[in-house]
This record gives sequence, C-alpha cells and structure tokens, in this order.
Amino acid sequence: MARYQIILAYDGTEFLGSQRQAKKHRTVQGELENALRKMGWDGTSVLMAGRTDAGVHASGQVASFDLDWAHRLDVLVNALNANLPADMAVRRAQVASDNFHPRFDATARRYRYRIFSQPQRDPLRERYAWRVFPAPQEDVLHALAAMLPGIHDFAAFGSPPRPGGSTERHLMHAHWEKQADEWHFEVQANAFLYHMVRRLVRSQIVIAQGKFPKEIFARALADQAELPSGIAPPNGLTLVEVSYPDNLEILKSKV
Amino acid sequence: MARYQIILAYDGTEFLGSQRQAKKHRTVQGELENALRKMGWDGTSVLMAGRTDAGVHASGQVASFDLDWAHRLDVLVNALNANLPADMAVRRAQVASDNFHPRFDATARRYRYRIFSQPQRDPLRERYAWRVFPAPQEDVLHALAAMLPGIHDFAAFGSPPRPGGSTERHLMHAHWEKQADEWHFEVQANAFLYHMVRRLVRSQIVIAQGKFPKEIFARALADQAELPSGIAPPNGLTLVEVSYPDNLEILKSKV
Repeated sequence: MARYQIILAYDGTEFLGSQRQAKKHRTVQGELENALRKMGWDGTSVLMAGRTDAGVHASGQVASFDLDWAHRLDVLVNALNANLPADMAVRRAQVASDNFHPRFDATARRYRYRIFSQPQRDPLRERYAWRVFPAPQEDVLHALAAMLPGIHDFAAFGSPPRPGGSTERHLMHAHWEKQADEWHFEVQANAFLYHMVRRLVRSQIVIAQGKFPKEIFARALADQAELPSGIAPPNGLTLVEVSYPDNLEILKSKV
Repeated sequence: MARYQIILAYDGTEFLGSQRQAKKHRTVQGELENALRKMGWDGTSVLMAGRTDAGVHASGQVASFDLDWAHRLDVLVNALNANLPADMAVRRAQVASDNFHPRFDATARRYRYRIFSQPQRDPLRERYAWRVFPAPQEDVLHALAAMLPGIHDFAAFGSPPRPGGSTERHLMHAHWEKQADEWHFEVQANAFLYHMVRRLVRSQIVIAQGKFPKEIFARALADQAELPSGIAPPNGLTLVEVSYPDNLEILKSKV
C-alpha cells in the first residue's frame, strides 16, 4: 500500500464541481472514486487539492489516494484513464509520502481565466472563454492587476471556506496577457476565497469597460469596500497548477 | 422580400450533420429553419453551401433564405442569434441577388483540421482536435501536403455526391502549420468528395507516423490506388470559409 499523487485534467462543463456531494450529483471526486473502485480500491474517499465550482475546468488539479498497486506508474495512469469518463484524464502520477495531503501541503494555486470580446456569440469558443462586449481597455486591466500582488484582506472579493475564517491571502502573481484577440488573466495565491478569482475577473472587466471608476477596486482592496455585484461565469476559468514545497519527503518518485 | 446570405458558426458535437434529415435528428439546417420560423419565415427550406458530417464544426458555413425583413441587417443577426441554440451563431448577414445559391455559386471551400500528439487523453482539447500518438514526423507531413495542389482524380480519397459522378477536383492549397504543440492542416479546393478531408488527414498522419510508406500516397493520387482504410474523426475538422466570385450581382450589401 502506498499513497499516490496524481495530476488531473477535466472539462468542468458537465460536472457539479470537484467535491463529492449527494450521490445523484456528478462530481470530479465521485468519478475518480468510481474509476479507482473498478481497479480494486476500497478506500472511502480520495483527497483533492482545490475545490473547483460547477463548470470550472482544470488542467492541473491534484488528488491523492492510498492504493495497493504492483505495477509501474505509467500503467497506473493508463488504467485510470481507461476507467475515467471522456471529460476527465490523469496526466501524471507520483508516489507521495504516507502523510501527504494535497490540500494542506499545497503552497500555492494558479488559475487562468480566458476572455474575448466580440458583439455576437461564438459557439466554438464559449465553452472555455467568457465573451465580453464592449471590449475592456487593456491599460486599465494592467493597472488593476498590478494592484493585486501582496498580502491583502480580500473580504470584498469572496468568502472564507469556514464562516468567520480569515480573509487574508497572499497573492503572488496577477497578470493579463493578450493572445490573438483574447485576454488571459493568470493569478496565483497561497489560497483563494470562495468565488475570489471570478469576482476579481468580473470587477476588473466592468471597470476596464468604463462602467465603474478604478477607485472602487483600490478601495475594495484597501478597505474591503463593496464591489459591484456579480461574478464572471465559470466556463472561462481553469485551475492550472497546485504547487508544493520542493521536498522529497512529500513526493518520492516521478514517472 | 429579399434573399439573404449568412455566415454561420457552430460546434458540431451535438449535431447529426448540417443537412436536414428526418425530424428526430438534430441538424444545423433544421435549427436554422426553426429559428427563422419563430421570426415569421414561412419558407420550406433554407439553402446551405457545404455539407458537414455529424460532429464536424464550422466557423464559416454559408446559408441563404428569402425573408421579408423591414429592419437593418445587424438587427437580423441579433434576432437570429436570440432564436438559435447556444451551439450555433450567425456571424454576419448580407443581402444577395434573388438567384444566389450558396452551393452552386461557391467557387471554393476551405477546411482546417487540428491534431496534437500526446500519450494520454486531454479532455480540454479533444472536443476540437484529434489526439494522435506517436507523433507524426513534420517533414513527412510537409512532403505529403506538397503533392496535393493541382487538378487530380481524388477517387482514392472519397466518393462523389452522386454515384458515378466525377471524382476530379481542383485543390488550390494544402498546408500543415505547427502551432505550439499542435499541427493544423489547412486545405482549400473547388469542392470536396465525401469524407475527402478526413481521409487526406488520416492517410498523411499514418504515413508520417511511419506505419506506411510515402509511396502509397503518391500512388493514390496518381493511379487511385487504394489507401489504408479509416478516416480521421470528425471532431478535429472545421469548415472555415466558402468563397464566391467577387461579383456585386451575387452579394448586394454588407452589414
């Protein structure tokens, strides 16, 4: 028996989020547990690094579980992918230390949000990107993102996992990048509040569209002043990476 | 009453192709006719430029219909998009001449096929791209595509729309382009045989993977020699453009 760490990718469209819920709801965790059971796993619950909402995608979600596995790691990846549904896949597997926990041991999470601007709907893009119109002003996006790095009280941007919990987070990196006719927002923090990335995106967009003054963003960061209501839709958001200390006690091997 | 030409985009995943069939089948043409009927259209059939198979996408399909429309063209586009399902959208509308026919007047069609190579499934890409493994050799892809331009008998690559019809086509352009870790095949011809693009892609890939010699491709083109069976899956294919003569008699106005 060993503890395994896996990197998971999924298209979140048909999932009611990452965490297992009532049986009737389709979740990433539930499907992973189903696949493992077909391979002889008799645990009660896998561990997940980050909670993603219904409709949010992942290219670098991390999960872990204890398993008796007599074969190589690449055979484990192939077996899991043969048993997982088409909208989920394992990218990599490693052996972890027995007390590795993908959520508690994580030092940072990185998300990417894709937007594009055009007046008419685009059925070939909207599964993975948010259409906004009119176009946001690029210099405003850059100015807003530049305010974010540092340790701030993000209470105006989301709620803590437990009521009354801290709303302080360490945001390491926030950046808008133009790619062809799209803008991609990349943001990394030690952890995120509930809905924080989607509220960060939505508030930057409405300000960069000229609908609200820049000051409301600065005041939300400095004094937790209220922001315009609303969050960006889930389909533009992807969890791209969860980071761990570079520590051989946690991750013992690589494929 | 005027004849309108529209440019259509759709995600083909949930369609049984572009052409209307029995009522129970969901098709692009059927959904466009449903949307038009909600706007007061009482025609029997819209005209479509190109036939796309089940699962094939389009960013530049062309359709046309006769309609009594008292408002501006951009209002027509908005009204159609409000009535079409989420996986279809009108990108542009123009007034055409009364005898414009999107299929018979078309001078060329352009398709794009996306592939990527990696050993494990990728749920965030496979809706719009074909995963192949092992990787094809890039120089072989370029050498094969270079054989294609010209007037050839493409009988080995597909069947004509009517049994006994000509299998000669004028292929104007064929090119593989590397984009990050993907290869995109772009191909333009006056018209294509049934399954021709998907058989062109599949035969180039299996040869560039080293599974068959290059000569089978040359002989299929020169002597209609039989190719390895199989066609590339529909999900990687997109109809990107239908071309018309630059003729004011056909297209009377622009948005």
